Parts: sequence; C-alpha cells; structure tokens
Amino acid sequence: MKQRVVNLDESFAEFRETWTPHVVGRVGPFDLRLARMEGAFVAHHHDEGDEMFLVLEGAVTLALPDGEHVVRAGELFVVPRGVEHNPVAEPGTRALLLSPTGTRNTGHVESERTIDALPEL
Amino acid sequence: MKQRVVNLDESFAEFRETWTPHVVGRVGPFDLRLARMEGAFVAHHHDEGDEMFLVLEGAVTLALPDGEHVVRAGELFVVPRGVEHNPVAEPGTRALLLSPTGTRNTGHVESERTIDALPEL
Repeated sequence: MKQRVVNLDESFAEFRETWTPHVVGRVGPFDLRLARMEGAFVAHHHDEGDEMFLVLEGAVTLALPDGEHVVRAGELFVVPRGVEHNPVAEPGTRALLLSPTGTRNTGHVESERTIDALPEL
Repeated sequence: MKQRVVNLDESFAEFRETWTPHVVGRVGPFDLRLARMEGAFVAHHHDEGDEMFLVLEGAVTLALPDGEHVVRAGELFVVPRGVEHNPVAEPGTRALLLSPTGTRNTGHVESERTIDALPEL
C-alpha cells in the first residue's frame, strides 16, 4: 500500500458494515484495520500473532479466558497470540485494530461472520 | 507486560516530558509508545522496522525524502523501515506510536534527545 496520511473519520465514512474490518495500512507484519462493531461477534483466536483493539467510539467487551475486559473510547487492549476472545460491542462502536496480515477476522473459526478477503481503503 | 486495558488520557497524565516516549504495551515485535511532542526533533531512521504515528492531539509534520506529510489529530501515518523522518510538532501534540521494540527514540542517531531505556507505564 502506498505511503499516505490516513484520516480515520474520512475512512470510516466510506463504509457502514459492521464486523467487516477495512484495511487502511500495514505496519510490519500487521494490518491496520478499521472496524465498526455492534452486538455479538464470535469467540475466536489468531494463531498468527497478537491483536490490538483501540476503541475510538463506543465500547467493546472482550471475554478472554482470564475474564472480561471492557475497552471504552480512548482505551486500548492487546489480545495475545492464540488467546480466545469473544467481542461484544455497544451500538456505534468504532475501533482501530492491529491484526496479523493474512489472519481472518474470525481467526480459526469459520462462521457467517468470516470474510476471507478484507476490503482495502 | 501484563494484559490490561490502557486508558490513553490517564496514561498521558502520568508524564509531562516531551520527546520521551513511554511504553504502555507490546504488540508482536512493536512497542506501543505514548509521546508528547513539541517543536523540532532530529532526523533519524529505524533499521529494525516500520514506525506508526497516530496523532491524538495537535499535529506533527514528518519530513521524509519524498516530501512533508502533515499528520493531524485523528490521522495516522506509517514511516517505512529505514526511511529517514524528521518530526516537527505543534505545541501540545500527543501521539500513539508503534515502534519496533528495542529501537531507540532517535533510531540510528545519537543526540541529546536520545533515551536508551524508555520508561514504562
């Protein structure tokens, strides 16, 4: 992807779908993904690497084996590689994710939420 | 570092120094660093990997060999590995950086800005 300044609000304005991360850049082995989230996703993990959630608006609760972590706007949380997490988000939640390039949005799980080729912005 | 929710405002409240990134977490081979920036830094590059600047407040101009990139609040930019960048920031600028763990804040340059062991929050 070419080097450019990415404006988060402008990028979010380009899509409305929830649970469909859009790739806006890459940093090392990670994608920078913008995601709209709402309601329940699916419990999954990523064998390829850690995953960061930086919440920009709303809040997401991440259920991990060690308990629930509520991540609100202006907060971030790193899910370690291989650790199962089950996201449930408030309506209107928006987040910047750092996910291993090539990993599926649903990780090891095949579900109706699975998107194999994520859109790029 | 232990798994925890990091609140950006609360973390920034813990330090005032500019150009002294504070490490708040790790994602794969990267540190998550919070930085207050103001005025001119020093031209440098990081041989260890890419570096992301997500500006939370204010603005930073990154002079790269291909030109100047102005990154404002709500915007991000990825400096590719090995590419020289010279940051100049507006007063009160705050950013979340993703920098290769172990790389110095001044990269290959030794300067009065160099901090070998970054503080952790």
